[in-house]
Amino acid sequence: VARVESVEAASGPHGAVPELSARARRAGAAYAGPGSGPAPAAGRAGALPTIAFTAGLPDAALLPAAALTGAAGAVLAEAANSALQYGGAQGWPGLREWLAGHSRDSAQVALSPEHFSLTNGSAGALANVCETFLDTGDVAGVESLSFPLSVRTIRSITPRIESIPVDAGGLDVDALEARLGELAARGDRMRLLYVIPTFHNPTGSTLTLERRRRLVELCSDYDVLIVEDDAYGELWFREEPPPSLYALAGGVGVVKIGTFSKIVAPGLRVGWCQADPATTAALVATRCDMGTSPLLMHVLDRLGREGFLDGHIARVRGVYADKCDVASRALAVHCGAWCRWEAPEGGFFIWVEAGERVDPAALAAAALDEAVSFVGGHVFAAEQAMLEGPRLSWVPGNSRSFRLAFSSVPSDEIEEGIRRLGHALKRAVGTG
Amino acid sequence: VARVESVEAASGPHGAVPELSARARRAGAAYAGPGSGPAPAAGRAGALPTIAFTAGLPDAALLPAAALTGAAGAVLAEAANSALQYGGAQGWPGLREWLAGHSRDSAQVALSPEHFSLTNGSAGALANVCETFLDTGDVAGVESLSFPLSVRTIRSITPRIESIPVDAGGLDVDALEARLGELAARGDRMRLLYVIPTFHNPTGSTLTLERRRRLVELCSDYDVLIVEDDAYGELWFREEPPPSLYALAGGVGVVKIGTFSKIVAPGLRVGWCQADPATTAALVATRCDMGTSPLLMHVLDRLGREGFLDGHIARVRGVYADKCDVASRALAVHCGAWCRWEAPEGGFFIWVEAGERVDPAALAAAALDEAVSFVGGHVFAAEQAMLEGPRLSWVPGNSRSFRLAFSSVPSDEIEEGIRRLGHALKRAVGTG
Repeated sequence: VARVESVEAASGPHGAVPELSARARRAGAAYAGPGSGPAPAAGRAGALPTIAFTAGLPDAALLPAAALTGAAGAVLAEAANSALQYGGAQGWPGLREWLAGHSRDSAQVALSPEHFSLTNGSAGALANVCETFLDTGDVAGVESLSFPLSVRTIRSITPRIESIPVDAGGLDVDALEARLGELAARGDRMRLLYVIPTFHNPTGSTLTLERRRRLVELCSDYDVLIVEDDAYGELWFREEPPPSLYALAGGVGVVKIGTFSKIVAPGLRVGWCQADPATTAALVATRCDMGTSPLLMHVLDRLGREGFLDGHIARVRGVYADKCDVASRALAVHCGAWCRWEAPEGGFFIWVEAGERVDPAALAAAALDEAVSFVGGHVFAAEQAMLEGPRLSWVPGNSRSFRLAFSSVPSDEIEEGIRRLGHALKRAVGTG
Repeated sequence: VARVESVEAASGPHGAVPELSARARRAGAAYAGPGSGPAPAAGRAGALPTIAFTAGLPDAALLPAAALTGAAGAVLAEAANSALQYGGAQGWPGLREWLAGHSRDSAQVALSPEHFSLTNGSAGALANVCETFLDTGDVAGVESLSFPLSVRTIRSITPRIESIPVDAGGLDVDALEARLGELAARGDRMRLLYVIPTFHNPTGSTLTLERRRRLVELCSDYDVLIVEDDAYGELWFREEPPPSLYALAGGVGVVKIGTFSKIVAPGLRVGWCQADPATTAALVATRCDMGTSPLLMHVLDRLGREGFLDGHIARVRGVYADKCDVASRALAVHCGAWCRWEAPEGGFFIWVEAGERVDPAALAAAALDEAVSFVGGHVFAAEQAMLEGPRLSWVPGNSRSFRLAFSSVPSDEIEEGIRRLGHALKRAVGTG
């Protein structure tokens, strides 16, 4: 997997690259997303292919190619003009109507198509929220472990990012309260807080109901806009997660961002913002993209109305629950002596913390040699991301914690991959 | 066609909408794009449906729904994983390779896939360029008549926009030189110049070769990044337009933006930036969208490699050339007494300037009554857009000039529409 080197060095009045904007410099070079480069380096020459627990991708076997083919054909036969001309910045009303009906929040709050705007994935949704409600120099809050491309989006707007600690129960609300109080005491404020409360990336944790209630209250008291990233919320294994921050807040002061990337396919690049209609209008009015593809929105709308999406989501929940079980059992068998983890209740990720005896650098080297890969925890450390600026690396690094993404590893390779991880951990202890 | 009202009034600490960012306030409310609202008001009760020369859309009859269906099916059958997972921020290399081979610039300059990045239409391309190379407070230049959504994108980044006059030969390069000199004299500079040199929107004009050469030289001398919007460049009628600014500059100091919106379908939302590889890397590194849809890129790539796109583009050139001829002849027959126009050599638009005797307000009213519509020239006036801020209206307004978009009017309705325009002009003189 490639990363883009810093382009700043090549820039300037005499270089080939025009002088970069402050935004571009803040955003910096970055990992350009899964699929942007070659596969990770192989392990030993002649070794087995690497089993990669790296990317937060859906299982390739679950990508609904046939259903998409059928829906695309039907849409192009029956609604070509609507699907192929411009569709407006808010996006196809039919799909927004389906979202309003489908959201589990509708049990608690009224939702209509006017509560939704369709975006280029949840990445596009977050960028839209930041562009609309955040200025350079404002304070934005993020969890101390978070999705680094989201932190980067926020940082592209403002360099003042406050990192709030997380634990197994999600964001530490006491710490948030203290931070908000400190900011207020010096006449400052946090304008926006970005959180992933459900099946968190990278930790897999779910914010408890009690913390959710306190978080919503605190952000209301301190006038902080909550951006609730719900990319994984539909992917619960045994039971539904607690109500969303959006629902608990009665739909006020929260923009919830969602995506079809994890439940259908990332390559559609269809996500959304869910917010009260006036806030939605502000988000739409800020956009300069002339909308994203109405063709893909029509296709998803059709799959929704045919009932395919509900069935598909139920099916993928079961598959990921099974994969998580396999991974958890394999961790207990092969890795239990050297690390701790907590099985998540949904989503794609298991967060593993290796014990003190494990040498992180030796673990990285041994994992490469054993042909197993994962993402070092340093990649998700918001503090480190802020210090290091643009440079992100998705190879195992100098971290004792790491993220195992079980979602995209074929079911019959998960145990073998974790067996290799056990070998790597054992070797990393041996060198300590 | 709807417009979004200003949302600023609803914003503030006590309103439902969080405080807007400076960028959102600069962008302001805006026309949300074609397809975002209801059709224009009807004319007389019981009258014929309006013939609308308003939107710069492809002819619905030319949207290649069947070819897209076939290509989508083949891609999803043969390359589902590549098309449906993330594809990286630069976009599917296959389509970038096709663009490099297909660009007419390749006769003058070397082009490779590394010269291209794929975006959410040319609107996404322009936003990406502005975010990467323009800061708030910088001076950006635009033509005095320009595509208002592009001017809005630029204004969302910086309020300092300089409007350079245009005439039938395109941008007035003498005026540009004077303006650049004035800026330099006070220690200031223009950082970026946005131009539509070929089959201009709205005027239909094409910048002469001599002016192109001088423009490139001036921008090189004054270190101004040229953003060349080539949305219509492929749609020449009789002969190819002069070499692009990109080609004349040897690929240095110019980002050329292109799109499949006019040659295939806007609803795909696939556009691109063409720039030297180092500049392309900077553009890609600034993006926070995790790329646009690789599925749609694969579909276009397949249509390109199968030879469909070349044939389709040749075919649509012929159709638009014929439609332009019909419109020009009809103008001569029905409107010649009251207005002037110059038939374009490509693209979608004829710019009409009514004579002094025509009362603009009366023309707007008469056109509504005659059930013909077009876009008043004030909508495209960059100076007015800067003065009026966010409010754009696409109904005929208080302008003596207007844009006739013949592209999307069914071939057999063009003459009737222009006959109605002639009636409206005649009535607008009668009241003067």
